[in-house]
Amino acid sequence: MKIDDNFYMKLAIDEAWKYQLITYPNPAVGCVIVKNGKLLAIEAHKEAGLPHAEINALKTAFLTQEPNSILKTKNNSSDIHNFLIQNHNGFFEDCEIFVTLEPCNHIGKTPSCAFLLSILNPKRVIISVEDPNKKASGGIETLKNKNIEVVKGVLKKDGEDLIFPFKTWQNKTCIFFKMAQTLNGMIDGQISSHRTKLYVHTLRDKIDLLMIGGNTVRTDKPNLDTRYVYGKNPDIFIYSRNKIFSQNIPLFTVPNRKVIVSDDLFKLLDYKFIMIEGVYNLLEILKDKIDFIVLLVNPKIRNGLNALNEIDLDFKILHENYLGDEKIIFLKRNF
Amino acid sequence: MKIDDNFYMKLAIDEAWKYQLITYPNPAVGCVIVKNGKLLAIEAHKEAGLPHAEINALKTAFLTQEPNSILKTKNNSSDIHNFLIQNHNGFFEDCEIFVTLEPCNHIGKTPSCAFLLSILNPKRVIISVEDPNKKASGGIETLKNKNIEVVKGVLKKDGEDLIFPFKTWQNKTCIFFKMAQTLNGMIDGQISSHRTKLYVHTLRDKIDLLMIGGNTVRTDKPNLDTRYVYGKNPDIFIYSRNKIFSQNIPLFTVPNRKVIVSDDLFKLLDYKFIMIEGVYNLLEILKDKIDFIVLLVNPKIRNGLNALNEIDLDFKILHENYLGDEKIIFLKRNF
Repeated sequence: MKIDDNFYMKLAIDEAWKYQLITYPNPAVGCVIVKNGKLLAIEAHKEAGLPHAEINALKTAFLTQEPNSILKTKNNSSDIHNFLIQNHNGFFEDCEIFVTLEPCNHIGKTPSCAFLLSILNPKRVIISVEDPNKKASGGIETLKNKNIEVVKGVLKKDGEDLIFPFKTWQNKTCIFFKMAQTLNGMIDGQISSHRTKLYVHTLRDKIDLLMIGGNTVRTDKPNLDTRYVYGKNPDIFIYSRNKIFSQNIPLFTVPNRKVIVSDDLFKLLDYKFIMIEGVYNLLEILKDKIDFIVLLVNPKIRNGLNALNEIDLDFKILHENYLGDEKIIFLKRNF
Repeated sequence: MKIDDNFYMKLAIDEAWKYQLITYPNPAVGCVIVKNGKLLAIEAHKEAGLPHAEINALKTAFLTQEPNSILKTKNNSSDIHNFLIQNHNGFFEDCEIFVTLEPCNHIGKTPSCAFLLSILNPKRVIISVEDPNKKASGGIETLKNKNIEVVKGVLKKDGEDLIFPFKTWQNKTCIFFKMAQTLNGMIDGQISSHRTKLYVHTLRDKIDLLMIGGNTVRTDKPNLDTRYVYGKNPDIFIYSRNKIFSQNIPLFTVPNRKVIVSDDLFKLLDYKFIMIEGVYNLLEILKDKIDFIVLLVNPKIRNGLNALNEIDLDFKILHENYLGDEKIIFLKRNF
């Protein structure tokens, strides 16, 4: 395998995917730092409010040289920024910094990543895709103005796949479909492991609306809460024509939650980040409304209700990860 | 992500998986070389008769320093061995060499990898699993006798998964099941892309017997040849009770092939490396005879015959790769 810019960018992209969706409303971003050919850091942005990928990677890289530096104790973006500006001592001047997305140029609570990089003066900054967010873009120019070599477009297609979810929620309501199945497409009953359920609860904590089919509500009588991760409980949209439900179903009694029972999809537009937890029939109904699919696959074959339906859809696999012994597959419609 | 022995071993393991089964009868092996923290080579053994993973990696690593060395023109194992013994000039003394399997100690047509490494005198040799093959093992001792630091057991479980197919064919007939399906388990008609078909033909070239169900033969009238890769055409075992087939079905007229029509599975033991190309009903019949499954998944959802059957099987995912836009999943029964 060739060890080149593509190789290091792939490491950054794969690392970023581990936090896909979890970084909402920020994009998933990864960063790799190589100093004189030595791989020093593979980091990602993990959650909105936590440091950007570049900051995590700069910190890790610096600590490989001075493992006992006080930097070790600094966890917020401002503190790491300030420390590095004062103490970098030319450490990054022979570094190549691979970022999946153009470093932000937006000065908010912290100085921008592009500004910090321009001070640290690395040998090269290698970027997969330019920032589609007008407010944060301009990072490449900031770097070039300081005569830092910038290479862009490395693994551009993979970089675009990585920020595809981010792009969907940038300017409109983002709707994704979550489905769990066995290898052979069986969807009955309890499919997923506890680890995968933890992940689903983490997603529920990030979204602002959870949509589910009326039949599933009647059959499963779910909570649809985030008890495994102590998160916030999203509002619920029960997709139903007849709109009659027993108020004893647990989801109705979860505090701080609005429950909408409706078949009017227009109401979805009041929300920004929507997960549909469904099976094939709901996918068939909503297939033209969804931006992407999160498919959770348990590696077993089971007899049971499965995809005997009229669905005929082609997908592109955006990415896959393991969730313990199971798989998570991010799919995008392929038209 | 931590950049440690596990990280580099994972790179070696993933590289080796790209050639899984293709190296038959040899094991799939990967090798990574790091010199003073610089990642120089990620290589694998690609096919029996071609150089071992270590040899490919040593060559790649050396060429990073002297890209125009005559070594560049040397492709067979002996030539690379001899060149490195004469010209290494201490290059590898500050190298760490990660190998997924204990370097071979067997002197055949070429000197053993362990012997070559003992001459090159690397700083450390890091090994995932010891060689289960008595004839080739002893490599660790050869290295230790030269006072080379050896670390073993790094990512041992992943290393064991990697050589699981090798272990199955070491002492007995290896039988694996190949199946193609859509995301939702649909198995009707043409599922796979041309790229995936090329891969299947490559597998057919490696195996010595291809088993298929009688009904599939009657319905599909297949060739079961290797025309896409100009390989050798395997013998065919048609699993059938009534044993009546039109001799006009193309597979019968492929030259240099024996066709067995039988329901006596004992006859399989005359062969060493058997692929079953089948669907769910054949899997149900043979589930206790197969060592592992190669599942080819096209990321689409289709209506059609799928896994509505009585199968109830749990798997462990040994590994996954992309085959172009599709997936190949190696599965092992989980009891």
